[in-house]
Amino acid sequence: MPSSRLEAFSDGVLAIIITIMVLEMKVPEHSAPEFSALKEIWPVFFAYVLSFVYLGIYWNNHHHMLHAVKTVSGPVLWANLHLLFWLSLIPFSTAWLGEAGIAEATTAVYGGVLLMAAIAFVVLQKAIIRNEGPESHLQVAVGKDWKGKASLAMYALAIGLSFVEPMFSIGIYIGVALVWVVPDRRIERVLLSQQE
Amino acid sequence: MPSSRLEAFSDGVLAIIITIMVLEMKVPEHSAPEFSALKEIWPVFFAYVLSFVYLGIYWNNHHHMLHAVKTVSGPVLWANLHLLFWLSLIPFSTAWLGEAGIAEATTAVYGGVLLMAAIAFVVLQKAIIRNEGPESHLQVAVGKDWKGKASLAMYALAIGLSFVEPMFSIGIYIGVALVWVVPDRRIERVLLSQQE
Amino acid sequence: MPSSRLEAFSDGVLAIIITIMVLEMKVPEHSAPEFSALKEIWPVFFAYVLSFVYLGIYWNNHHHMLHAVKTVSGPVLWANLHLLFWLSLIPFSTAWLGEAGIAEATTAVYGGVLLMAAIAFVVLQKAIIRNEGPESHLQVAVGKDWKGKASLAMYALAIGLSFVEPMFSIGIYIGVALVWVVPDRRIERVLLSQQE
Amino acid sequence: MPSSRLEAFSDGVLAIIITIMVLEMKVPEHSAPEFSALKEIWPVFFAYVLSFVYLGIYWNNHHHMLHAVKTVSGPVLWANLHLLFWLSLIPFSTAWLGEAGIAEATTAVYGGVLLMAAIAFVVLQKAIIRNEGPESHLQVAVGKDWKGKASLAMYALAIGLSFVEPMFSIGIYIGVALVWVVPDRRIERVLLSQQE
Repeated sequence: MPSSRLEAFSDGVLAIIITIMVLEMKVPEHSAPEFSALKEIWPVFFAYVLSFVYLGIYWNNHHHMLHAVKTVSGPVLWANLHLLFWLSLIPFSTAWLGEAGIAEATTAVYGGVLLMAAIAFVVLQKAIIRNEGPESHLQVAVGKDWKGKASLAMYALAIGLSFVEPMFSIGIYIGVALVWVVPDRRIERVLLSQQE
Repeated sequence: MPSSRLEAFSDGVLAIIITIMVLEMKVPEHSAPEFSALKEIWPVFFAYVLSFVYLGIYWNNHHHMLHAVKTVSGPVLWANLHLLFWLSLIPFSTAWLGEAGIAEATTAVYGGVLLMAAIAFVVLQKAIIRNEGPESHLQVAVGKDWKGKASLAMYALAIGLSFVEPMFSIGIYIGVALVWVVPDRRIERVLLSQQE
Repeated sequence: MPSSRLEAFSDGVLAIIITIMVLEMKVPEHSAPEFSALKEIWPVFFAYVLSFVYLGIYWNNHHHMLHAVKTVSGPVLWANLHLLFWLSLIPFSTAWLGEAGIAEATTAVYGGVLLMAAIAFVVLQKAIIRNEGPESHLQVAVGKDWKGKASLAMYALAIGLSFVEPMFSIGIYIGVALVWVVPDRRIERVLLSQQE
Repeated sequence: MPSSRLEAFSDGVLAIIITIMVLEMKVPEHSAPEFSALKEIWPVFFAYVLSFVYLGIYWNNHHHMLHAVKTVSGPVLWANLHLLFWLSLIPFSTAWLGEAGIAEATTAVYGGVLLMAAIAFVVLQKAIIRNEGPESHLQVAVGKDWKGKASLAMYALAIGLSFVEPMFSIGIYIGVALVWVVPDRRIERVLLSQQE
């Protein structure tokens, strides 16, 4: 079974998730059309930007990962749906963070969704490697995957810290995003060297 | 006419259906940003997970079924739209089940939509087989289709039981989903044997 | 420029239009979870079915039309966006018809959107034929296009009749839809004969 | 890495953005089903048409630009997401303009989003040209890009004018849209000459 339809479906779901978040960003209906009305939606805007970047990272990494894949098995299909499930909760955790504000519960739940999505990504990676065999390009490219493991640890740390000082957690979410915006050069490098 | 555009359109509709359901999951606007606010949306979350799994199953089976198809006729196009119509009602039945709670009407309607979608799937299967001829891969792969027929019977049973005890119906919906998450190995097997 | 990306974008927009209509179908939030609650949404459901069928017809005919197309020009791109614009108003006219009920204004506006979409379809057809030249498959297939012309006339009639008796207009909308659900055999026939 | 998945994802996001704007267009729930109810949504309709045209222009130009591209790098992926981010704010600025009316703040914010999207388009263009090398088709096709630069200047002018007379700004937005609806013949011409 080719991986193209899996990519197309995942792209569709990711495109929708990334776009429906913006529906949360609404200027209060009965406020005057003045710049001051924008102040109220500033936290929603910040949360939107952060989640947009995270979903961009997932799309990017998903793109890289599936690029190295040739065929898709049943477990891979379900591991992919499992990842999409957790990503589909990002609009919810983003809306709560943006509207109710930076607090214990909202920050911890935001991190919880990120943590579950990151775990789902690792599960998908393992399902693909099991399907492709130990000499798969992906296995070589991923290697020890310190960046993935460190991100998991950082999300867990941020969830814990949200009960101490939620702003620390927000700082971690921003930091991890910045680390990932740098694309995964490992996979690019190995794929390029295969083509030579 | 190639089946690729049918797949692309169906993927688009399924991706949107599976994603817009999450828009129902909203923390009450004026509640404090505390974990207790999540308790209220727990039933909505449960209904979302169940319907996400069902839509994943349909995407999966649709993927398998069309994989065995080469050309598409007018009746197949309309049988496919008919299936998408019933699937498009899942966000409605899910929202009602999640928000109004597990009761006679909500549980029966949830099952009714599943039953109609399952019937539409069988109709689509028959339309494809008629188009491809009796020696089509799909016909061989599907065989007597006991799993499809048993699911139909289970949905009908669950609808009936919802008037006795809605929780029984919910149990059946969960059970049928679990049976289907195992991908349809029949089609995979026959297709693989064809390629040898 | 190949027509594949035009198809993909149009499929995306059509898939979203056809699916967001269902968001209008909501059981009143504070009603009891009883079957009687469904009575209130019956008109919305009817309007949804009618518009779902119309959008299915457009997707189908769009599919057939672009299947005969090899390259796409600027005017074709804009004629296609023009068609998508009028189709994107169908969720609005459907919601108004469903929620405010069958009345002069709602029925006439529903027909007005259908009429404009039908005109946009003819414009797109002409733009494609001009681009492909008079011997294009599409020109041969379309011929005198009595069905398209008759539909335009029926929509105009229905708009006029909505000021006399809106139910007549609804009858016409249902009737025209039934005529179109039969796929456009003219195009299929010519394309098949070309391949022989 | 091929550009096809980048196109598919961008198409998905653009299709959703262009379509969810129509969700803002709602007849007030408790108004009578009369034509007079449409008067209230007239400004929302106008804003929808304007933004639909702008998003159509971006889809069109994006289509032309990526048509000249063969491979995609990390910076190109992120420059593309950056463009999609600003475009995703168009439903917000459109809704505000349509609902709160033509005023200083709404008109300036509408122009601000257009300006940022235009800058993001230039950044994406530069990222692609850097990736493809100075002899890339795109570089030749774009040339000095006076139309792009003039648009940037016009958006900036319109933002400034919104504090004097918002209607001037609206006039500029309409004017720039009209200039762009004419497709970018420069790219078409160069690509065609390459194929000869």
